[in-house]
Amino acid sequence: MPTVPSANPADDIAAGVDIAALLERGRAMSTPELRAAVDRLASPMNTVAAYHFGWIDAEGRPADGDGGKAVRPALALLSAEAAGAGPETGVPGAVAVELVHNFSLLHDDLMDGDEQRRHRDTVWKVHGPAQAILVGDALFALANEVLLELGTVEAGRATRRLTAATRKLIDGQAQDISYEYRERVTVEECLEMEGNKTGALLACAVSIGAVLGGADDRTADTLEAYGYHLGLAFQAVDDLLGIWGDPEATGKQTWSDLRQRKKSLPVVAALAAGGPASTRLASLLAADAKSHDLDAFSEEEFAMRAALIEEAGGREWTSQEARRQHAIALDALDGVDMPELVRAQLTALADFVVVRKR
Amino acid sequence: MPTVPSANPADDIAAGVDIAALLERGRAMSTPELRAAVDRLASPMNTVAAYHFGWIDAEGRPADGDGGKAVRPALALLSAEAAGAGPETGVPGAVAVELVHNFSLLHDDLMDGDEQRRHRDTVWKVHGPAQAILVGDALFALANEVLLELGTVEAGRATRRLTAATRKLIDGQAQDISYEYRERVTVEECLEMEGNKTGALLACAVSIGAVLGGADDRTADTLEAYGYHLGLAFQAVDDLLGIWGDPEATGKQTWSDLRQRKKSLPVVAALAAGGPASTRLASLLAADAKSHDLDAFSEEEFAMRAALIEEAGGREWTSQEARRQHAIALDALDGVDMPELVRAQLTALADFVVVRKR
Repeated sequence: MPTVPSANPADDIAAGVDIAALLERGRAMSTPELRAAVDRLASPMNTVAAYHFGWIDAEGRPADGDGGKAVRPALALLSAEAAGAGPETGVPGAVAVELVHNFSLLHDDLMDGDEQRRHRDTVWKVHGPAQAILVGDALFALANEVLLELGTVEAGRATRRLTAATRKLIDGQAQDISYEYRERVTVEECLEMEGNKTGALLACAVSIGAVLGGADDRTADTLEAYGYHLGLAFQAVDDLLGIWGDPEATGKQTWSDLRQRKKSLPVVAALAAGGPASTRLASLLAADAKSHDLDAFSEEEFAMRAALIEEAGGREWTSQEARRQHAIALDALDGVDMPELVRAQLTALADFVVVRKR
Repeated sequence: MPTVPSANPADDIAAGVDIAALLERGRAMSTPELRAAVDRLASPMNTVAAYHFGWIDAEGRPADGDGGKAVRPALALLSAEAAGAGPETGVPGAVAVELVHNFSLLHDDLMDGDEQRRHRDTVWKVHGPAQAILVGDALFALANEVLLELGTVEAGRATRRLTAATRKLIDGQAQDISYEYRERVTVEECLEMEGNKTGALLACAVSIGAVLGGADDRTADTLEAYGYHLGLAFQAVDDLLGIWGDPEATGKQTWSDLRQRKKSLPVVAALAAGGPASTRLASLLAADAKSHDLDAFSEEEFAMRAALIEEAGGREWTSQEARRQHAIALDALDGVDMPELVRAQLTALADFVVVRKR
C-alpha cells in the first residue's frame, strides 16, 4: 500500500488516493460523450434530458448543476484499467450506465411522486409526466445504442450485462413500491430490494469497462461481486443519510425518508429488533400509515421517530451492515488480478462510499 | 405467381396465400416463447403483463383475449425464410419485436390517457400508472435480453437494429404528443411521425429474422425499406379506420380519432387541400381545440366533421397514399433474392394490410 499522506478530508480513506480527482476524471472523461449521446435526442426530449442532468435550468439557460457524485463513471473507467486496458475503453460503458441510472431516476421520481432531486424540481414536475416517461425511455434506448454501435463482440457482452442489471433495477423498484403498501418488511426483503435497486447497476459499472477491455466472464463476475456489495454498503449509508443526513449536504429535506414512509434498513432493522423502543416505534408507524399527510408533522415528531429507531438499534445495525458489505466487497477484489494502483483506487472508492456525508 | 384460388374473404389479396394461416403460424410459433419471457418477470409485473397481453382478465382468471392482428410475428418468421433460414430462426426476433411493441403501447396509453385497448380497460386504468410505467420498462429490457442471450454476433446486430427502431418509435410518440398542441401540422410532418411510430418497428420485424439468419446489411436494409413503407400503408389504413371504421370490428368508439383530436392523415390532408369544405373544417376544429370536452358532442357533430374531411378530399387522399406506400413496399421487395413462396407471402401480407377492416 502506498503511504503518501492523503489529500482527502476523510482520514480513513486508503492513503495516497485522491478520491476527488478520481471522481473528477470519471466525470471529465464521460460527460462529453454523455452530452453527445443526449444531443441525438429529438426536440424537446434533448432539452428535457439536459434539464434533468443539470446542464440547463427550467428556462433553458445554461446551468452548472449538481450532476451527482459520479461514482459509477469513475468505477467504469477503473474497471477497464483492472482488465489492463486504458481508461478510455471504459467510457462507452460509463456513458451507458449513467444513461440507465438516469432513465431509472426519471421514471422512479414520477412513480414515487418525488418533487425534488439534487436541489431542483424533478422532470415530471417541470415538464409533465409524459416527458418524464418518454425521456426515460429514450435514455434507456440510448444506453443500448451507445454500446452496440461499437459493433464488437465485447460490446454485445457488455450490453447483455447491462440489460440484466436493468432488469434487476426494475425488479427492485417494483419491490420498493409493493413494500409501501405492506405493514411489515423483513430485513432480508429490504436487502434484496436494495441489492436490485442499487447493487446491480454498481456491479455492472465495475464490470462493464473490463468486459469492453476483453476480460473473461469469471473476472467480470468477480468484479460484479465487488460492485454488488459496494452497492449494498452505499445504500446502507444512503439509508442512514436519509434519516440523519445534513440537508445542506444531501440536498434532501430533514428526515426525508421518514417523511416518505420509506421502509429503509434502519427502520426495518429497528422493527425487527424487539424491545420497548421497537414496540413503541411499530405502533407509531402503524398509526402513521393511516394518516394521509405526514407533511403536517412537526420536526419534533420526526425527531422522536428517529430517536426510537436509534434506541431500538436500527442506526447501529445499519452502520455495521455498511461495514460488513464493505468488507465483503474488498474480499471479492482479492479474487481479481489487476495493477496494484487500480486495486488501491477501487479500495479507496469503497472506503469513500462508507464515510461520505452526501 | 401461384393461381390456386384464394381462401381469403378479400378478393384482392394475392391468390394462393392463406393470410389467416400465415398470421396464425406467427402467433402459434411465437406465443409460447413470449409467455415464457413474460413469466420471467417478478410478481406482480408478470400478472400485469399477462393482463395486458389478454392472457388473464382483471381478476386474474385465464382469458382468451384479443392479442391483436399479430402481423409483426408473421413478418419476423417470413424474414428468416427470406434469408434462407427456417422460420424458427425468426422466433426470438418476433418475440423481441412484440415486447417492444407492447412496451410502447403500455407507455403510450398512459401518456395519451387512453382508457380502452382491444375492447378492454388499459393497464394504467386497471393496475395504476406506476405499473404501466414499470411493466413497460420491463418489457423493453426483456426484448433486449431475449435477443442477447442467443450470444451470437447476429443477435448483437439484431439488437442494434431493434434499438434504432425503438428510438424512432419514441421520437414518433414525442412528435405525436407535440402535434396535439399545434394548430397546424403539415402532411410531411404527419408522414414523418407515422413513419417513426409505425414504420420503423414494422421495418425491424421484416429484417430481424433475416439478420438472425445471417443476412448481410444490404439485404436487411432492403427488407426494412419494404417494412417501412408497409408500415406507412398500414398506418394510412389505420387512420381511415380511426374515422370511418366499424366500431364492432376495430374495438374502438365511433369517430375515435376525431374524439381524440388526432391530427391523422385524413384530417391533415383535408386541411391542406384548401376550398370551402377545408376552410369550414379548419374553423370548426379551431373552435373544438378550445373546448375541453368533446365527449359532450353528439354523433351528428362528429359525422359532420367526418363528412367535411371527406368532401375536402382527405379520405380519398389517404386511400391513395395507402396504395402508393403499398406499391413502394412491393418495389423494394424486388431488390431481395428470396424463395418465390416467401415473396408471394410477403406480397399477400402487404395486400392484406391495405384491405383489412380492423
